[in-house]
Amino acid sequence: MDILVLNPGATEEQLKHIIKKLEGRGLQANISKGTERTIIGVIGDTSKISEDEENAIRAMPGVEDALRILKPYKLASREFKNEDTLIDVRGNIIGGRKIQVFAGPCAVENKTILMSIAQKVKDAGAAFVRGGAFKPRTSPYSFQGLGEEGLKYLAYVRKKTGMPVITEIMDPRDMEVVSKYTDIIQIGTRNMQNFRLLLEVGTAKKPVLLKRGLSATIKEWLMAAEYIMSKGNQRVILCERGIRTFETATRNTLDLSAVPVLKKLTHLPVVVDPSHGVGKWDLVAPMAKAAVAAGADGLIIEVHINPEEAFSDGEQSLRPDDFATLMKELKPVAAAVGREI
Amino acid sequence: MDILVLNPGATEEQLKHIIKKLEGRGLQANISKGTERTIIGVIGDTSKISEDEENAIRAMPGVEDALRILKPYKLASREFKNEDTLIDVRGNIIGGRKIQVFAGPCAVENKTILMSIAQKVKDAGAAFVRGGAFKPRTSPYSFQGLGEEGLKYLAYVRKKTGMPVITEIMDPRDMEVVSKYTDIIQIGTRNMQNFRLLLEVGTAKKPVLLKRGLSATIKEWLMAAEYIMSKGNQRVILCERGIRTFETATRNTLDLSAVPVLKKLTHLPVVVDPSHGVGKWDLVAPMAKAAVAAGADGLIIEVHINPEEAFSDGEQSLRPDDFATLMKELKPVAAAVGREI
Amino acid sequence: MDILVLNPGATEEQLKHIIKKLEGRGLQANISKGTERTIIGVIGDTSKISEDEENAIRAMPGVEDALRILKPYKLASREFKNEDTLIDVRGNIIGGRKIQVFAGPCAVENKTILMSIAQKVKDAGAAFVRGGAFKPRTSPYSFQGLGEEGLKYLAYVRKKTGMPVITEIMDPRDMEVVSKYTDIIQIGTRNMQNFRLLLEVGTAKKPVLLKRGLSATIKEWLMAAEYIMSKGNQRVILCERGIRTFETATRNTLDLSAVPVLKKLTHLPVVVDPSHGVGKWDLVAPMAKAAVAAGADGLIIEVHINPEEAFSDGEQSLRPDDFATLMKELKPVAAAVGREI
Amino acid sequence: MDILVLNPGATEEQLKHIIKKLEGRGLQANISKGTERTIIGVIGDTSKISEDEENAIRAMPGVEDALRILKPYKLASREFKNEDTLIDVRGNIIGGRKIQVFAGPCAVENKTILMSIAQKVKDAGAAFVRGGAFKPRTSPYSFQGLGEEGLKYLAYVRKKTGMPVITEIMDPRDMEVVSKYTDIIQIGTRNMQNFRLLLEVGTAKKPVLLKRGLSATIKEWLMAAEYIMSKGNQRVILCERGIRTFETATRNTLDLSAVPVLKKLTHLPVVVDPSHGVGKWDLVAPMAKAAVAAGADGLIIEVHINPEEAFSDGEQSLRPDDFATLMKELKPVAAAVGREI
Repeated sequence: MDILVLNPGATEEQLKHIIKKLEGRGLQANISKGTERTIIGVIGDTSKISEDEENAIRAMPGVEDALRILKPYKLASREFKNEDTLIDVRGNIIGGRKIQVFAGPCAVENKTILMSIAQKVKDAGAAFVRGGAFKPRTSPYSFQGLGEEGLKYLAYVRKKTGMPVITEIMDPRDMEVVSKYTDIIQIGTRNMQNFRLLLEVGTAKKPVLLKRGLSATIKEWLMAAEYIMSKGNQRVILCERGIRTFETATRNTLDLSAVPVLKKLTHLPVVVDPSHGVGKWDLVAPMAKAAVAAGADGLIIEVHINPEEAFSDGEQSLRPDDFATLMKELKPVAAAVGREI
Repeated sequence: MDILVLNPGATEEQLKHIIKKLEGRGLQANISKGTERTIIGVIGDTSKISEDEENAIRAMPGVEDALRILKPYKLASREFKNEDTLIDVRGNIIGGRKIQVFAGPCAVENKTILMSIAQKVKDAGAAFVRGGAFKPRTSPYSFQGLGEEGLKYLAYVRKKTGMPVITEIMDPRDMEVVSKYTDIIQIGTRNMQNFRLLLEVGTAKKPVLLKRGLSATIKEWLMAAEYIMSKGNQRVILCERGIRTFETATRNTLDLSAVPVLKKLTHLPVVVDPSHGVGKWDLVAPMAKAAVAAGADGLIIEVHINPEEAFSDGEQSLRPDDFATLMKELKPVAAAVGREI
Repeated sequence: MDILVLNPGATEEQLKHIIKKLEGRGLQANISKGTERTIIGVIGDTSKISEDEENAIRAMPGVEDALRILKPYKLASREFKNEDTLIDVRGNIIGGRKIQVFAGPCAVENKTILMSIAQKVKDAGAAFVRGGAFKPRTSPYSFQGLGEEGLKYLAYVRKKTGMPVITEIMDPRDMEVVSKYTDIIQIGTRNMQNFRLLLEVGTAKKPVLLKRGLSATIKEWLMAAEYIMSKGNQRVILCERGIRTFETATRNTLDLSAVPVLKKLTHLPVVVDPSHGVGKWDLVAPMAKAAVAAGADGLIIEVHINPEEAFSDGEQSLRPDDFATLMKELKPVAAAVGREI
Repeated sequence: MDILVLNPGATEEQLKHIIKKLEGRGLQANISKGTERTIIGVIGDTSKISEDEENAIRAMPGVEDALRILKPYKLASREFKNEDTLIDVRGNIIGGRKIQVFAGPCAVENKTILMSIAQKVKDAGAAFVRGGAFKPRTSPYSFQGLGEEGLKYLAYVRKKTGMPVITEIMDPRDMEVVSKYTDIIQIGTRNMQNFRLLLEVGTAKKPVLLKRGLSATIKEWLMAAEYIMSKGNQRVILCERGIRTFETATRNTLDLSAVPVLKKLTHLPVVVDPSHGVGKWDLVAPMAKAAVAAGADGLIIEVHINPEEAFSDGEQSLRPDDFATLMKELKPVAAAVGREI
């Protein structure tokens, strides 16, 4: 909180009470008495004022509003660290000149299918294989993932293809088992503000890909990254995957402007998941290109050898051939914005 | 999935392939060939078709859309259980004629303050005391709650006042400790789709108050209740607490129409939290009255003896005097809709 | 604009340039140099700084943000006029102790049906009859209203029943004809920011009921009222009718918290339209009660003798019997909040 | 309406009543009796059933829901006209291989500034000059545009530079004067459902650029185009300019996925306005590139020689140098997706 706006009818006594409160916290008050309102600029290290104290101050008699100008996140901010964070995963740099592609099925179903998909996306140019072993599903009656068995298949595929692996964690109790098999830990949309899980992965030795919550502001998203970083894990990758709006023509509304906004605010790499963003396979290709043009550092794309038989999200999965075509088409787009893929 | 809409150009072969697929699952296809589209009514127990199979079918060639007419939740539905669920907590019935009021501070801060607030809200007519020991906070640098110490204070207050207690759980690993002290387990907004936590409280012997997610549809909310109920715990209370919209004049947009909508769809009790819904103490009273008029079975209201010194959410807390006034004013409103408070 | 926040790297020169600019507009700059940011409190009559100048200032080098603390509307604000505005329409006071009810069909269809509905809603206690002669329809192929013929039927019904009439205007060219027949001119949701139409009704001698836009903030809504008032017509009634959100269980999300928010910000009367807010007739009654409990000065309710045959919005219309029941049930709710109906 | 879903408790009598009603309209009912619900597929030319009749049918006893599978727009649909609509404006084809760029100030301020900007954007490669003479402003106290004087300046600039002109109409009464000077008539966001204005420009001999409403679904947007086309004017250009969401980091949320969605649904050209979409000049370039990569047929970009002195929207305007740089950078992006600029 850096600015206090007083009520039109705030009294001198209330003003003094507020100033005293601020001084009690080692801060100074710079008073601007306007014709209609008095505004207090708070001078000193206002980052020490917690969210809670801010709310309390907002509740003081005479105060109409308390505005925070300074960003509430620190470790994640460009001001704290100006140069881009590069994350090296088995030699693949995320956040550098090369746009990294993570591809694979929504859910790990069995070893053969996973292996087959992985080989095909590798041939097409993907660097990472993705696949869910623990699946957050809207319905308790839907397939919930293979669990550790699925993780083992991922590890098997990594060994065979050499591709590093990304998979989702849903429960802090799974930290050990997930960390054992994966190269990057994914936090899904529904868990972006599962703070206990964030703190847990904050202690992991693996990079964390943090998906944006369905209705999370960019600020809240960066605060979620800050949770992870505050525990010592600085290797956070942000993933835009669509927000919830009134529009129903697409599954979600892919907010590509988040990419350049984040590039200004944070040093962390930003990737885009067009598959979840739009929810329909034939919209994935144009939005993947748009994401690259907007400055994304990577793409997560669902690919399945037989979408019609996929255990989940078949509707939004590309077939390997379509994925290979897309990879080819992405090359000149990446080059057009000074990147490679 | 109960209706399939085919593409305008769907072929006879594709149609046959789809029919075969349905029959393979023990279902029958009733074909309506319109002038522009063919529509398939799926006959049989379509509730057996999982979300996943539905997505897969949606991905079949020739299919434009798959519509689910039947509700995806079962145990939570009025069709499954027509009579209202009554939840008895130490003799206080939630879901009956009496509107139950849960009041107390946002966070448990210390024993003295909690005791003082509890006594005052009890005197004013509240039946339950609320208070967070584990606090989900946007910032990792904010007060995170007292943990078990806070739970002990709640238990102490219950013993002294006789009021049953409600408090939030954030982590499946806390199930034992939280269950030990509380009468009702609260699942907060940010955890409405923390499915592992839902499954965990589904095994609890305590009722669960399930807050609506910030951007959760009513259908998703009922599916989250279904997660809990599918594990055997049928005592779920739904709590509307505001959804995220574009409007910034209030902290959230309290969706009171959710109350009558839920009353049609489910047998579970529905309570309203106007404090979080609006985020400003002086809007709490009118919205509490509106909630009762709309048919709510209960209210959760934040009360603090000194909002200015509260550790969290001071801005939206009522002072005990204002709360007592509100309780008096609610009486005729409750009576007007055939209830008591 | 009352506060300027400078970039962390803003130079002394830029600061001087900004101060000079402000002084050139007769304003003074109160500088607060914080540890990380410099903040400028702007002193003087900042209401003279137009939206445009504010945008221009925001574009100056060194400026990160420009915040407007003072409200951008004046005539509509409580600060400008503290006492509630009472609007007298043929002896019916809108904004006073009595809650006024406007009832009738969505669209005027023919004289007989309109007369029949009007008589029934009058008998049940409605003071005003509503009905659209010019209908804004999503589709060009839908019934667009009877036009002047419909207005004549409304006038006829007024003559026969003594009930004042409210109807919608869609086009500034219809001002003369609409004014001739109606007692209150309605501006519909889709035209809330049809500024030319607002200016036109600003010159009318009739009160204007201004519906909230589907995605209008409360601030924008009050600015739309300000448009009308700036032309001399101070008799503006605000009507909450639901906003667009992600929720599809109801047609719109009725934002009842707008009622107490508006009561703080403005002296204008506030009415609620639960019929459009929820879009389903069986949700209208609970939300009408909630609106009254929240402090609404009136209700607009769609009633049709045969919803199944209605030309528009049959789904959300009450039958006269249900309306009469609702009117009876509203009486104790109104009494409970110190009002009558 | 093509599918009717009956209530679980719908009676045989109700079913017969519904069938009779449909047959009375020349339609046939194909009944699918499921285990839990009866579904009626409506066969025949359901496009004849108006929105109103649909609502009425939805209100019939026994009916739970009525679904419309067929698109409610016709002239605007790909089914009606498969090949892309090309709009030729003084030799510049909109909707073809070349991506057309419309650039200029938000508002026309004076002849000199307009001329200067136009010359610069022309030199940089823009084909059309944009500028508002009638400005829809949130506040009645903001600059409302120069009116006809502004139109004359636009015509002057067209004569001098040869660039065709696009400007906004706000009022049906301005049709004659606006048509006289402009090459393309723009319908702004706030007027997307100003149906009278749509009908009016439907009779114009000029192409119409129709901006998406702030909270308009893609379907409603196409229905607004249908309004124009139903009056005979088939030359409609759709313009995505951002929708309103909860996110405040950008002015609006630019919904780029609308581009490929529209390309599937309609034959009309689609352009993107990144300036209004993001509201900050330094985000315009990445989003312009993303729009091109997503398949946009054109871009509308605000350019001002001195954003700090602009009468409106200075914050989101590019300086001519930045615009020229952007135009250069767009070339390889356009080439990468098989277009030119």
